[in-house]
Amino acid sequence: MERHVRHFQEELDELKGRLLEMGGLAEDRLRLAVRGLVERDGPLVEKVLVGDAAINQLHIDIDDRCFKLLALHQPMAVDLRAIVAAVKINTDLERVGDLAVNISEAVRRYLQHPPVKELIDIPRMAELAQDMLRDALDAFVRRDPELAQHVLTQDDALDELKTAVFRELLGYMLRDSATIEPALDLILISRHLERIGDHATNVAEDVIFMVSAKDVRHQ
Amino acid sequence: MERHVRHFQEELDELKGRLLEMGGLAEDRLRLAVRGLVERDGPLVEKVLVGDAAINQLHIDIDDRCFKLLALHQPMAVDLRAIVAAVKINTDLERVGDLAVNISEAVRRYLQHPPVKELIDIPRMAELAQDMLRDALDAFVRRDPELAQHVLTQDDALDELKTAVFRELLGYMLRDSATIEPALDLILISRHLERIGDHATNVAEDVIFMVSAKDVRHQ
Repeated sequence: MERHVRHFQEELDELKGRLLEMGGLAEDRLRLAVRGLVERDGPLVEKVLVGDAAINQLHIDIDDRCFKLLALHQPMAVDLRAIVAAVKINTDLERVGDLAVNISEAVRRYLQHPPVKELIDIPRMAELAQDMLRDALDAFVRRDPELAQHVLTQDDALDELKTAVFRELLGYMLRDSATIEPALDLILISRHLERIGDHATNVAEDVIFMVSAKDVRHQ
Repeated sequence: MERHVRHFQEELDELKGRLLEMGGLAEDRLRLAVRGLVERDGPLVEKVLVGDAAINQLHIDIDDRCFKLLALHQPMAVDLRAIVAAVKINTDLERVGDLAVNISEAVRRYLQHPPVKELIDIPRMAELAQDMLRDALDAFVRRDPELAQHVLTQDDALDELKTAVFRELLGYMLRDSATIEPALDLILISRHLERIGDHATNVAEDVIFMVSAKDVRHQ
């Protein structure tokens, strides 16, 4: 039994390591996509558009580990909640990877036009979304509900930035129809960033449930 | 043991019933939001904006049932995959409910302007998304991989409609700046509908994995 428990904890640590790795990859891809936007670097954006094989492989690998842990070790209480949380977090991270692709597609179109404006709020949104994602995963690994709670607070700031971006770009579109197409893509990019924040929020809520068995999702 | 197994199957059937109920509620809300758009019925849209308590309650209840089934019955193989699938499907359905709210928010703004055009493709997108959702849930309940596969095929049609909607509305925006704000909201609505299709796709992929233990997600 002692041996069995130790083995389970090792497997669980390995699982956490994979989730961090996947989070790191998703974050990298997001960073590259937004750098491609800000520095108008087309080839960089193309790199994001082709390279999600590693994330997809991790997605399958992590799911597989979760099923094995559930089937072979039949964990209880916080360990059971940790593995179900891992299944969900895995899905969230995979979507973040997909959203980095969606952002890159919009950036590719955006770069075919002259710049609408100097970009300030969108890179800020991207940084905030990355921070939230990193904090949420750290909270999962360390089982830290305070850090998870902090992520939930940050989501409001992201939401405000999204609204500010929308208003400002709508102004450009109404004043100058030449900006309509590129401004539309910037709006779509801001929506994708908002969704990355939503995924970080999901992870944070899963962490709070895992640690406390308390559901904070519909309050 | 015989009794234990029967009890487990009853609990699993109950769980499936709740998922179908939640899917039905999410579908209703989507239908109301889009009817509010097409018939320019503001009060109907407001109803969608206030009424997601039932879905949120089911979301918590279903998650709870999944944890109890995992902890008390320690299911194996296809039953284990069915319960993990239920956890994921529960998340997807809750998001569909959220997206009905997002659609209603955009419809509320849209109704403050004169109509941009007669709406044809957006109601068609909504119907398609609803069909996909219903088929995906039926496929889950009946463990029917062919029906799940059919859902994956339908997603391409939804994607084509989204692209057509985008091009057409962009045309309006470029020709007449008075349409910019309402057309933008229609574009956002079409993106929300696309995401509902993505959630149906997730459910269908989970069904295929549940039945065959075959991962079709990254092919």
